[in-house]
Amino acid sequence: MNVAILAHEKFPDRAKTALGVLRYADHDAVAVLDWDNAGQRVNDFVPDVQDAPIREGMADLEADEVDTLLIGIAPIGGGFVESWREDVRTALEYGCDVVSGLHYFLSEDEEFVRLADEHGCKLEDVRKPPEDLTVSQGIAGEVDAEIILTVGTDCSVGKMTTTMELARDAREAGHDVGVIPTGQTGIMIEGWGNPIDRVVSDFTAGAVEEMILEKADEHDYLFVEGQGSIVHPAYSAVTCGILHGAMADKLVLCHAAGREEIHGYESFDVPELSTYVDLYEGLSAPVADGEVVAGALNTTNLADDAAAQEAVEAYADELGVPATDVIRFGTDDVLEALF
Amino acid sequence: MNVAILAHEKFPDRAKTALGVLRYADHDAVAVLDWDNAGQRVNDFVPDVQDAPIREGMADLEADEVDTLLIGIAPIGGGFVESWREDVRTALEYGCDVVSGLHYFLSEDEEFVRLADEHGCKLEDVRKPPEDLTVSQGIAGEVDAEIILTVGTDCSVGKMTTTMELARDAREAGHDVGVIPTGQTGIMIEGWGNPIDRVVSDFTAGAVEEMILEKADEHDYLFVEGQGSIVHPAYSAVTCGILHGAMADKLVLCHAAGREEIHGYESFDVPELSTYVDLYEGLSAPVADGEVVAGALNTTNLADDAAAQEAVEAYADELGVPATDVIRFGTDDVLEALF
Repeated sequence: MNVAILAHEKFPDRAKTALGVLRYADHDAVAVLDWDNAGQRVNDFVPDVQDAPIREGMADLEADEVDTLLIGIAPIGGGFVESWREDVRTALEYGCDVVSGLHYFLSEDEEFVRLADEHGCKLEDVRKPPEDLTVSQGIAGEVDAEIILTVGTDCSVGKMTTTMELARDAREAGHDVGVIPTGQTGIMIEGWGNPIDRVVSDFTAGAVEEMILEKADEHDYLFVEGQGSIVHPAYSAVTCGILHGAMADKLVLCHAAGREEIHGYESFDVPELSTYVDLYEGLSAPVADGEVVAGALNTTNLADDAAAQEAVEAYADELGVPATDVIRFGTDDVLEALF
Repeated sequence: MNVAILAHEKFPDRAKTALGVLRYADHDAVAVLDWDNAGQRVNDFVPDVQDAPIREGMADLEADEVDTLLIGIAPIGGGFVESWREDVRTALEYGCDVVSGLHYFLSEDEEFVRLADEHGCKLEDVRKPPEDLTVSQGIAGEVDAEIILTVGTDCSVGKMTTTMELARDAREAGHDVGVIPTGQTGIMIEGWGNPIDRVVSDFTAGAVEEMILEKADEHDYLFVEGQGSIVHPAYSAVTCGILHGAMADKLVLCHAAGREEIHGYESFDVPELSTYVDLYEGLSAPVADGEVVAGALNTTNLADDAAAQEAVEAYADELGVPATDVIRFGTDDVLEALF
């Protein structure tokens, strides 16, 4: 699939979805759209992901170069930015599908619906949950596949990245691995999945279970992308539903080095690591006996490799399990704990 | 408000909402509709709730006797039962509002919408969440009111009943108490509230917080109706969201005597009581320091008062806090622990 990825004014640092797709998806990226950096290349900014030219807009591409436009960024609140309209319009006129993770549903925009209809293409809002979700049956623990879930100390600590790095490296090591995506970036990378944060609260666990039941026969191992944190003042419901819906055998605890307060909720301190281990394992025990067997520490904010190495070692020591920074130091130690 | 309560074929034992309304709501019940028991009275079956005649259908009432029809039962799955249509039709023709907690929304039924429009009355689906809910700000802990939350070892152990009994008796003892309803029966009793199990999962805590912020200035104490259980394979997300959204100061742990397996999920054992206390307090600690200060044991399944008394004492001993069966033995001991 040939994709263009819209990331105006936010590439690369505030374009998490665009970068996730460039890093992990199977798609061929024909361009990133960013009028601020048009003429440069992705690798000028980020060396270790799929390269692509950066263009000003869809009009700079030929219709036959591209199959799909992905919206690779989101403003706070998840609305549609009107200055993007011309790109979406052109994409639809080219006959491209458009995939979006915005809260604003493109499939409810009158002009886009009309254009998609005229040109025979699809508007896919990955944040719109399917209609047929329901409550969990409580049977994800019975599948043959081993289930590995990333859990976190907070939002934005690297659960999606850890899931994708572990899955890719495990595949390269010869294991038969599937990914269960639960958020917009994961869904765009994998090309399917339920947006767990948008489902009816009663169906949170059920929406995870449904994906596991669908994929368990196809793989020996399923890596489930976690969300939020179990003590997050706003998002813990989603975290708890994923934990019980996935009924994981093994947990990987993700943390950002130096994070001491809940991101965006700074009146709340991040508790001790042992509190997280006790809560994740304690909540898991009555349904699945999932244990924290490895740690993933995000050390982006440490400039120095030696300091990062020290931080990872301290993290592993405190957890009493192998740990790494999956981007900086690779996944070998953690994969050894998982397989 | 003069209400008729529809409970065909399920009164009284499988009519939880009808009984809750008869027991706790301020409404005047002019009739229960149950064609199986027409001609008898509510108190022939249940002595300790508001009495009312049982009638065959709305057509047996005069239009000026009744303001509102409440749907007081729900089939498994929450669909609308077509044999009830004549009652809803007659109610609307009488000019009555119709309040329903079904998953099937009356406000999306073509005939009912037309009739409500013609007769100037309202269709109120209490399970349809308001459109303007959003994520929690994490500030319920800052309100002046003291927040007391019922938590449970399972579904259907008496959280709603405990909440309502404690609130009523506390008011009678002179305390200024508000109730925060979170489920369909609570909402029908109180006449307002967010159906937490139907909101978008990301807004679970926020939908509770919004209610607390709305009512905190009006009362000294808020009793929050809990849902589900923190280790429930299907519903724990809702429980966790309520716990963190409410940021309760005090928790009352509700349990059903003798319950050893999760209701409807019998492959899962109910863990030790101490596990629940550890999990509820452990999850609460990072945001609100809520502690289990009392217990409520549902002893309906014990015929003998002495056995019930013994069970309550054992429950209190095991928890190390005062406990009662709120229906059988009243709320004095527990209220003492709360105020």
